Amino acid sequence: MKKNALYAQSGGVTSVINSSAYGVIKSVMETNEINELFIGKNGLNGVFEKKFFKLSEMDIKQIELLPFTPASAFGSCRKKIKKDEELKKLFNVFQELNIKYFFYNGGNDSMDTANKVNDYAIKNGYDLVVIGIPKTVDNDLFGTDHTPGYGSAAKFLSVSMYEGLLDVRSMAKDSTKVFVLETMGRHAGWLTAAASLCSLNSKISPKVILLPEVAFDKQKFLSLVEESVMKDGFCGISVSEGIKDDKGAFLSDLGYLDNFGNKQLGNVGNFISGMVFKELNIKVHTAIPDYLQRSGRHISSKADVEEAIMVGKKAVEFALKGLSGFMVTIDRLLSKNYEVEYKMIELSNVANHTKYLPKEFIGDNNMSVNENFYKYASPLINGEFYPKYKNGIPIYSFFNY
Amino acid sequence: MKKNALYAQSGGVTSVINSSAYGVIKSVMETNEINELFIGKNGLNGVFEKKFFKLSEMDIKQIELLPFTPASAFGSCRKKIKKDEELKKLFNVFQELNIKYFFYNGGNDSMDTANKVNDYAIKNGYDLVVIGIPKTVDNDLFGTDHTPGYGSAAKFLSVSMYEGLLDVRSMAKDSTKVFVLETMGRHAGWLTAAASLCSLNSKISPKVILLPEVAFDKQKFLSLVEESVMKDGFCGISVSEGIKDDKGAFLSDLGYLDNFGNKQLGNVGNFISGMVFKELNIKVHTAIPDYLQRSGRHISSKADVEEAIMVGKKAVEFALKGLSGFMVTIDRLLSKNYEVEYKMIELSNVANHTKYLPKEFIGDNNMSVNENFYKYASPLINGEFYPKYKNGIPIYSFFNY
Repeated sequence: MKKNALYAQSGGVTSVINSSAYGVIKSVMETNEINELFIGKNGLNGVFEKKFFKLSEMDIKQIELLPFTPASAFGSCRKKIKKDEELKKLFNVFQELNIKYFFYNGGNDSMDTANKVNDYAIKNGYDLVVIGIPKTVDNDLFGTDHTPGYGSAAKFLSVSMYEGLLDVRSMAKDSTKVFVLETMGRHAGWLTAAASLCSLNSKISPKVILLPEVAFDKQKFLSLVEESVMKDGFCGISVSEGIKDDKGAFLSDLGYLDNFGNKQLGNVGNFISGMVFKELNIKVHTAIPDYLQRSGRHISSKADVEEAIMVGKKAVEFALKGLSGFMVTIDRLLSKNYEVEYKMIELSNVANHTKYLPKEFIGDNNMSVNENFYKYASPLINGEFYPKYKNGIPIYSFFNY
Repeated sequence: MKKNALYAQSGGVTSVINSSAYGVIKSVMETNEINELFIGKNGLNGVFEKKFFKLSEMDIKQIELLPFTPASAFGSCRKKIKKDEELKKLFNVFQELNIKYFFYNGGNDSMDTANKVNDYAIKNGYDLVVIGIPKTVDNDLFGTDHTPGYGSAAKFLSVSMYEGLLDVRSMAKDSTKVFVLETMGRHAGWLTAAASLCSLNSKISPKVILLPEVAFDKQKFLSLVEESVMKDGFCGISVSEGIKDDKGAFLSDLGYLDNFGNKQLGNVGNFISGMVFKELNIKVHTAIPDYLQRSGRHISSKADVEEAIMVGKKAVEFALKGLSGFMVTIDRLLSKNYEVEYKMIELSNVANHTKYLPKEFIGDNNMSVNENFYKYASPLINGEFYPKYKNGIPIYSFFNY
């Protein structure tokens, strides 16, 4: 009897994670070696609760919309597997459903989980093929040139920064002169850096990039802002939600913003703008796109969507070769034009590493990025791939879960 | 000798104010009755400082990009004319430049200024034709069915809410369950209401709309959020930057958020999300798009761009008839399909009025909008009209000012 496969999404979503699902689904449809594809509702939660979509019962029209649909079409999870008994429960379900292939689509934590599942299978002699499919807007996954989801979030942020800069430039003569854009990315500055990519096709760019890799230097920051306002009349700032002081404490944890007792990241944009207003007496506007940057499918990069589909397809291709315990990677070729190859890395090598923005990409003043970063990131935001619209609103796939 | 014309932009910008500039420019190019068109750099500031663009010297390629370009291509202003001597100075420049036609593109305050200019001309026997061109994302201008700029900001917010809802729905099973989107609009709830327009083509919609027209009711709000999370698993909230308590005080002025001593509007989204977290112990994410909603030309509504061009063209058409002291209005016809007619209203009738969201558009629970609003707003977000891109970034017009 032919075996079945299981696919689940995990962690914070992106605007192209469903493109990877689409790649998996299409490849499973094409092969004769897999009988049924189960998709977990709310990721691994669906496995524990035996709540699944079955490919054989899914609406093909909704499937064809997946590459145009942001967030998790089937629900995601923040599930961490901590105990062996949880793994045992998981494998009971695998056995019951005759699962041989397990595709797990996520970031760092998820690759750790996939690795644990793979180890458990080996230890207990269960014939399972585990393949990780990379996903994260943060671009902090180890072992791959970049991660699907990053390019689209980067495009959202660079276009947003461009439009925000045009706005503040318009107002700067007798009103607001500083525009702050807060980005996600936690400990890694890839998204924060991405806001500067507007300069690939504009005469204006953000003059201050506050990266989490660099300890925040208040005096230097204020000088740079003042200088930029003096010179250009206005100043754009891209700030990471995860910037820290020289003792490694999050700036948003310094007691300035915890009105509600909750020390969550984010809102550091208002901390920064408050500082500029208070110390320089300059009017500031602050945008905090939050979820919008990672689910903004309406402005996704074509390159990103296509690669997200490919990592899904490659996951199935590699799995059918019987290779287990790997994550699909995107390798950039050393060619003149941008070209990639899809390879693999052992899950144990990926799990729980963080890939930071390298020093070679950071500008001399530590509050900017340089040509090396532009060269790296520009192909990733290339091309547009619009959803269709009805009544002025995008047509996105919708599954009940 | 043929007379000249002056065009200036004013107030907070929109993603289609340059489309109105394009309409003015195109009509001036077509007529034989106007010699030169001066465009103020940084709005009226440019008139006082004698800093202008001259149409005869402008790059046609940059002009053709205007309908695709957000914010103010020539610079805007927050200039208020308070004294007669300022008006005198203004008219000296008018005389020097042989100005007969003055087109002022702005919102409430700007129409007040245009009205003062018109009155001064009449009182002092200066042969001047003053026409106001409507513009504001807030949609609070009196005497017009709606205002250019609103449709595109409404589209940005409804698409953003849809994408944010898909995101929070993905995460809701074991993480974040509430998504808060803060909108502009100050005292009027048009933009806040617009976030709900995603339901024109989606199965999910924000269940709480906090309008500035309705005094904030904390207990009712928390009940509604709790109920929505219980029923759907997640809850989307659209909140106006201008919501007030039952004494009429801004919520963001209640001492919760003025860490920096500055009582600016905005950031009320974090106040609301902090309340949900603290009182209901539910994890919340908050997006504050700020400038992005009003300058997000990459997702502008086609209907809005086309109407913005038309009000510019009509301004010139009306001016050439010698009519002065009017603002161009958009009148909606009582036809089955959406159709408009361009008319005029006296500037004195527009100036300093605010058009609030009417009661007939607000839902029974006072924290929602109803079918009347959908019927009103749906044609305004219709159609897409994308800019071209280069290197992954939109191609926008750029003038040095």
